Amino acid sequence: MTAERLARMRQVLDRRQPDLTVIMAGVHKEHNVSAVMRTCDAVGVPEVHAMGVHGHLAVKRTAAAGVGRRVPLRHCSDIEQGVADLKAAGYRILGAHLDPQARDFRQEDYCRSVAIMLGREKEGLDPEARAVCDGFIAIPMLGLTESLNVSVAAAVILYEAQRQREQAGLYDSPRLDEATYQRLLFEWMQP
Amino acid sequence: MTAERLARMRQVLDRRQPDLTVIMAGVHKEHNVSAVMRTCDAVGVPEVHAMGVHGHLAVKRTAAAGVGRRVPLRHCSDIEQGVADLKAAGYRILGAHLDPQARDFRQEDYCRSVAIMLGREKEGLDPEARAVCDGFIAIPMLGLTESLNVSVAAAVILYEAQRQREQAGLYDSPRLDEATYQRLLFEWMQP
Ligand SMILES: C[S@@+](CC[C@H](N)C(=O)[O-])C[C@H]1O[C@@H](n2cnc3c(N)ncnc32)[C@H](O)[C@@H]1O
Ligand SMILES: C[S@@+](CC[C@H](N)C(=O)[O-])C[C@H]1O[C@@H](n2cnc3c(N)ncnc32)[C@H](O)[C@@H]1O
Repeated sequence: MTAERLARMRQVLDRRQPDLTVIMAGVHKEHNVSAVMRTCDAVGVPEVHAMGVHGHLAVKRTAAAGVGRRVPLRHCSDIEQGVADLKAAGYRILGAHLDPQARDFRQEDYCRSVAIMLGREKEGLDPEARAVCDGFIAIPMLGLTESLNVSVAAAVILYEAQRQREQAGLYDSPRLDEATYQRLLFEWMQP
Repeated sequence: MTAERLARMRQVLDRRQPDLTVIMAGVHKEHNVSAVMRTCDAVGVPEVHAMGVHGHLAVKRTAAAGVGRRVPLRHCSDIEQGVADLKAAGYRILGAHLDPQARDFRQEDYCRSVAIMLGREKEGLDPEARAVCDGFIAIPMLGLTESLNVSVAAAVILYEAQRQREQAGLYDSPRLDEATYQRLLFEWMQP
């Protein structure tokens, strides 16, 4: 561990956003899971949730190898329980879902505590997952294709959140609580 | 072909952007090619270019099956020739590339004629590809990960272009020339 590497880790931790997270509700292809997690790391999401619906368990543990060291992946086989915990912690749950009632994703305020929920590759968000959302957001589709790849949709939304948070100064000073900061630093320092 | 389907195709063609395109310079994983092309369709890019560098030929033809019907993929084994043709047609070539000299992608003006060039999954943009770019754009990375997945990077940039073009009213009235409009409509109508 060089001094330079440690300084780099601190710089990254100083920009982590404790009130921004992602829920993968049954996303299962490894390349998608890995792409979502790289994007989460890049915009400062400190940890990601993989939640299962009716026994479709979350993601394979191997899928998060590598980037999972930088962005811990929390597994929860029961989406109702997992979401209840996040709501109790103050998160608003926004389902990324092409629904006629969804709002244009750019109209949402991502500076609040927010968890973005992503659906399965083929089926999208299951009814059980939709039922626990506080609202839906959609990315406009101007072509013949019906949906975007899930990691693509996640990134378009997360970089809108990054843009809003940057404007609001939320990357300007450290925001993680001290215990989380030290825990993550300790985990990252392991060889 | 129902009347409804035909109306849908016309609506999509009315929003196609003749002065926005993407060059995949050696992108080769099928899931990435397909994700890039779905996003292109979704923001109104009428056709995409796959260009090779030193015999790394462009993408496998099968990769574009499906979405390739909606967004034709033009293959060109010689990137210098391919880019020269685009420049002659008035396109500015912007390399998506994490270079210290790159501009933040949000500072670029995507309402001009622009071709966004994407690099290979592992190696990024080869020197030959970089040499023909007019400028470089980078998406900010606030974490420990060094780069985004290529289809993710493409989407973040293309949806910024879509945002700017929407604001500028470029989706409000048809912009394809009549010959291209009719050619695409004819191709889409094939069973
Ligand atoms: C490939 S899509 C699933 C498509 C599925 N047929 C549906 O209708 O929901 C996988 C996930 O990506 C996200 N997604 C894809 N395109 C989206 C868009 N335009 N707006 C919001 N979310 C999108 C959603 O979370 C979706 O559940
Ligand atoms: C996985 S990256 C290649 C990484 C390679 N090691 C490099 O340094 O270029 C594949 C392609 O995605 C695009 N890309 C990925 N992250 C990007 C970012 N933050 N800004 C701009 N383009 C990016 C670039 O076109 C890049 O060539």
